[in-house]
Amino acid sequence: MLKLYGFPVSDYYNMVKAALLEKGFQFEEVMVRPGADPNFLAKSPMGKIPCLEVAEGCITETNVILEFIEDISSDLPLLPADSFRRAKVRELMKSTELYLELVARQLFGAVFFGAPLDDQTKQAVSAQLDKGVAALNKLLQFKPYAAGAELTYADLMLYYTVTLGGMAVEKALGRKLADEIPGLGGWLALMDQNPSIQAVNRDRDQALKAMMGG
Amino acid sequence: MLKLYGFPVSDYYNMVKAALLEKGFQFEEVMVRPGADPNFLAKSPMGKIPCLEVAEGCITETNVILEFIEDISSDLPLLPADSFRRAKVRELMKSTELYLELVARQLFGAVFFGAPLDDQTKQAVSAQLDKGVAALNKLLQFKPYAAGAELTYADLMLYYTVTLGGMAVEKALGRKLADEIPGLGGWLALMDQNPSIQAVNRDRDQALKAMMGG
Repeated sequence: MLKLYGFPVSDYYNMVKAALLEKGFQFEEVMVRPGADPNFLAKSPMGKIPCLEVAEGCITETNVILEFIEDISSDLPLLPADSFRRAKVRELMKSTELYLELVARQLFGAVFFGAPLDDQTKQAVSAQLDKGVAALNKLLQFKPYAAGAELTYADLMLYYTVTLGGMAVEKALGRKLADEIPGLGGWLALMDQNPSIQAVNRDRDQALKAMMGG
Repeated sequence: MLKLYGFPVSDYYNMVKAALLEKGFQFEEVMVRPGADPNFLAKSPMGKIPCLEVAEGCITETNVILEFIEDISSDLPLLPADSFRRAKVRELMKSTELYLELVARQLFGAVFFGAPLDDQTKQAVSAQLDKGVAALNKLLQFKPYAAGAELTYADLMLYYTVTLGGMAVEKALGRKLADEIPGLGGWLALMDQNPSIQAVNRDRDQALKAMMGG
């Protein structure tokens, strides 16, 4: 039985959870917050979530877990069979992570936890976002999926990046990703129809409500 | 014919070049500095190097290029055949990149190009390095290679990270990675005997000498 460690508000956790559901895996969810608990550090060396536990041990880093899931499942591939197209999906996954998710993440403290945010940081993040959005607009296809005709991991990574990260960008910088990335709005509507995404979002919204004391 | 864009002082460029040599690929090197040249941005959306051009188009991001090279070559695998062990090598690759290379890279401006470096930045980088080194020490095997008995991509990534990044860490922070990562010294001596590493380093040293006006 696979065990997925994390919590359902995390965008990275939800990318992996959506992939497991999409591929029809049975798995147990174990609620853990990222941090320096020594027991969890034995599973996840940086204390990060998600972490996937399998019979042989634990695996961390979202893209690494996604590759592992792909390697052990033969049904419903989420990476193309062709080597070049597979590389282009991986390039989109990595670019989404480095140039969009990690950029927006610098705003999470201010937007979600009330930390201070000075103008210098805002300007620096905004400049990084300009570069990241320009690069992603060169790679994104939306035909109708992010990397072409089929749903891939690039869609799952982009979806949870633009939903959580896009909220942070809008609240902190007043910028709407849907205005800056042509095709994003229609693609989001398409993704919102996916049953795995819907199941993950139900748990996310319930966890958010509980966090807010609602 | 494969074309590799970049320059031989870059640690990321040298990881890919060593992999191509190790696997016996024929390839042409095209000297390019990272940057915003529109011609190069058409190949590499963030203007980053390395970039690999193949018949179908261009691929960026070091780990993505390494996966592509693995996918198209059947000789001399540099990722294990077993799914879990392959995941552990990928986890080590990603951890080396995020928690060691990108941490040390924040010092490159000061160490290699004379940019200012304030105490606050030094302390922040040093704290990140503490966490990264602790995490890597949990993942590294050195039996005798980074991820076990065979040479893998984790070795190539770690080698060019600790040689260039380790130099920056020592000059800026006075810390020696070999003192903090048990087994690193012996493994570096082993890696220095690899003919592909030796070939890459000859080109790197020549380019460094030319850069310094020597």
